[in-house]
Amino acid sequence: MMKQNRSIPSIASMTKAESFKLAALPITVRNAALRAIAQALETEQDRIGEANRMDLAAAEAVGLAMPLLKRLKFDEVKRSEAIEGILSLESLPDPLFQVLLSRELDKGLVLKQVTCPIGVIGVVFESRPDALVQIATLCLKSGNCAILKGGSEAAHTNRALFEIIHQAGVSAGVPEGFLTLLESREDLNALLACDKDIDLLIPRGSNAFVQYIMEHSKIPVMGHADGVCHVYADKKADIEKAIRIVVDAKTQYVAACNTVETLLIHKDIAETLLPPLWETLKKEGVRLKGCEETRGIIDCEIATEEDWHTEYLDYILSAKVVNSLEDAIKHINHYGSHHTDSIVSEDLHAAEVFQLLVDSAGVYHNCSTRFADGFRYGFGAEVGISTGKLHARGPVGLPGLVTYKYKLYGNDHIVREYAEGSRQFHFKDLPL
Amino acid sequence: MMKQNRSIPSIASMTKAESFKLAALPITVRNAALRAIAQALETEQDRIGEANRMDLAAAEAVGLAMPLLKRLKFDEVKRSEAIEGILSLESLPDPLFQVLLSRELDKGLVLKQVTCPIGVIGVVFESRPDALVQIATLCLKSGNCAILKGGSEAAHTNRALFEIIHQAGVSAGVPEGFLTLLESREDLNALLACDKDIDLLIPRGSNAFVQYIMEHSKIPVMGHADGVCHVYADKKADIEKAIRIVVDAKTQYVAACNTVETLLIHKDIAETLLPPLWETLKKEGVRLKGCEETRGIIDCEIATEEDWHTEYLDYILSAKVVNSLEDAIKHINHYGSHHTDSIVSEDLHAAEVFQLLVDSAGVYHNCSTRFADGFRYGFGAEVGISTGKLHARGPVGLPGLVTYKYKLYGNDHIVREYAEGSRQFHFKDLPL
Repeated sequence: MMKQNRSIPSIASMTKAESFKLAALPITVRNAALRAIAQALETEQDRIGEANRMDLAAAEAVGLAMPLLKRLKFDEVKRSEAIEGILSLESLPDPLFQVLLSRELDKGLVLKQVTCPIGVIGVVFESRPDALVQIATLCLKSGNCAILKGGSEAAHTNRALFEIIHQAGVSAGVPEGFLTLLESREDLNALLACDKDIDLLIPRGSNAFVQYIMEHSKIPVMGHADGVCHVYADKKADIEKAIRIVVDAKTQYVAACNTVETLLIHKDIAETLLPPLWETLKKEGVRLKGCEETRGIIDCEIATEEDWHTEYLDYILSAKVVNSLEDAIKHINHYGSHHTDSIVSEDLHAAEVFQLLVDSAGVYHNCSTRFADGFRYGFGAEVGISTGKLHARGPVGLPGLVTYKYKLYGNDHIVREYAEGSRQFHFKDLPL
Repeated sequence: MMKQNRSIPSIASMTKAESFKLAALPITVRNAALRAIAQALETEQDRIGEANRMDLAAAEAVGLAMPLLKRLKFDEVKRSEAIEGILSLESLPDPLFQVLLSRELDKGLVLKQVTCPIGVIGVVFESRPDALVQIATLCLKSGNCAILKGGSEAAHTNRALFEIIHQAGVSAGVPEGFLTLLESREDLNALLACDKDIDLLIPRGSNAFVQYIMEHSKIPVMGHADGVCHVYADKKADIEKAIRIVVDAKTQYVAACNTVETLLIHKDIAETLLPPLWETLKKEGVRLKGCEETRGIIDCEIATEEDWHTEYLDYILSAKVVNSLEDAIKHINHYGSHHTDSIVSEDLHAAEVFQLLVDSAGVYHNCSTRFADGFRYGFGAEVGISTGKLHARGPVGLPGLVTYKYKLYGNDHIVREYAEGSRQFHFKDLPL
């Protein structure tokens, strides 16, 4: 639904009521709605194109930076990718009504653990219209109502996409309240207070933006504030691999959360690795900020304490020489953001220790941190990457959007008889 | 470790450092520690008994209520149960190092999703010494360090149990920091601020106590504040079953969170059910607070709006006549605490709708709400019951105490080659 004249608390409570209708829909209806949405995005391409051109023109007029313009753009390529994503989502098995456990506790008393939607999810994202499509359809597939708040730069595109998706979904039999679009910052603040009706917040955006949301709401948040990812070049690192992996992890797409920000180098290979690496990085336009030891080997800017905490999201890399694998792990667990960290080493034992003890969602061996992504993991679309340790961790796809309930089927069973010993549990797992 | 002269933030940060050592221990060491703890609780029975008698004497001197005294008591029976619980926990499979997913993304690039501990868990509980034993050993089995804060009424017993468990664990090779006991309210407040080092809080206690913790910490909380559980007697309810189930759910143990607090009765059976039910409840010493319709049928106290929100934890039941199954579900989702609710009905379709649409961790058919419990579900010990929807829901045992990380094993794999199309992912799931 659109906000119109309703207050945010009333929208949240209406959405909660509708969420039970959505939760009860069979997969056939949810899949039909996904196909209708894909179809409508095809048919309504002119309308989408026009809306996006308005947003782009306005953004250029105020001088929005090029990376932001690129994210804002929703052209033919992005639209086709979005449609393809929806059709691939449609083909995935139903995440709901899955029986995770079926157990006879006693004769006639059967416990089933069954997946169900989380309920109402508030999704807040900055200026990426493709994120709106992805998130709306992931929530629909998993039976969750979504209340979206997009960035104001993408207002026209978001509104067009929302109206198209909403109409197509409703026409396929999904309840009105499955999707709502909010458009102002005041609406967002009001939403953050609806902890009785909103079950989960998924914020996607800058560090400061996500921090703001985490600090201003009692609703559980799934996502990540920052991505301070590391590559550790171990004493047994293959130099060629280390260079290739660091360059990819830094430059393949600098604005991503899984881009490397700090390179840690074992002291034994610092003199061999740093000079050729620095030559390569310079050619790629990367600035290096090094510790004292690094600057004893190559000529680069100096890194301060602040740098070890910094997510540059830019062609800048900090570098630190460490004395041991243990020191590298300590540095990562202290300064990192528990996102994704990689060790480059030919020593399998060192890699194993690193992957065991680094406290991050992704712990890699001999590959680029840029692989941390739902598509690259083969999950299909993702709603985001979580650096929290509860519920879903790392790239979050459909399984992260469901919970479960315990259904207990009895026939006049009471606890007194078990407490007094006249009946006993026998716990027999049944086939699923 | 004991607090001694250390500050709480320094204890939290030391515990975090130790948590990585604990996470790396094989199951053989964790199980040996569990056996050593069970053994020590056996050998040190006199010391435990003496400590508990001191607490009981002090509690009686200040006139602590009988139900609290019962919880505080740690006698021969409770000690044997605790030891039995530890040995049964020891026999369970290792919840760590479980490979949940193994997928070849491309030649030589393999993704594994592997379970690991959450890290450092703060557990706050009131005066139940048996809870200390259960929680400490569950955390140990799952590789999590635990910082415990028990109720001051049980101070002597808790300290004795802590020292015995800690010493036995350390002697079996577990790191010093696997378990810490805090003893003052100021320590608790300081702990709530350690959101960088504490990964999860599990509070067990009264509604107000849990609310306080939820509102005074940024650390994620797993548990429940209150248990406002319902029994709904449907229009097709078997009257005898309804009476047996309501009486059991109300009186089998009034102080539990899974005790029924509100009875909803379909209008069509209110006149048949209420009079005999009320006679039975009166004999059991239960006070009834009814809505207007209820009071039109039987002579009982009046229920106010406040009653529908109230967890009595006492021999009191509120009762409301509803017009339909839908109204019953709405009432439960609005006033309930998403804990456990049961429908009594011979109509399988009504039961199915109830279990689908009631938004609670436990949704039961024709049985008592008192079954909501880790032991009764066959999970072994539990750390508590969660009414949240993220991570673990319902009774939380070992699976709720672990998370996972994604380990990616490559050999010089970079993302640029996939982005440019010179390599493609092929996603092939490997046997676990």
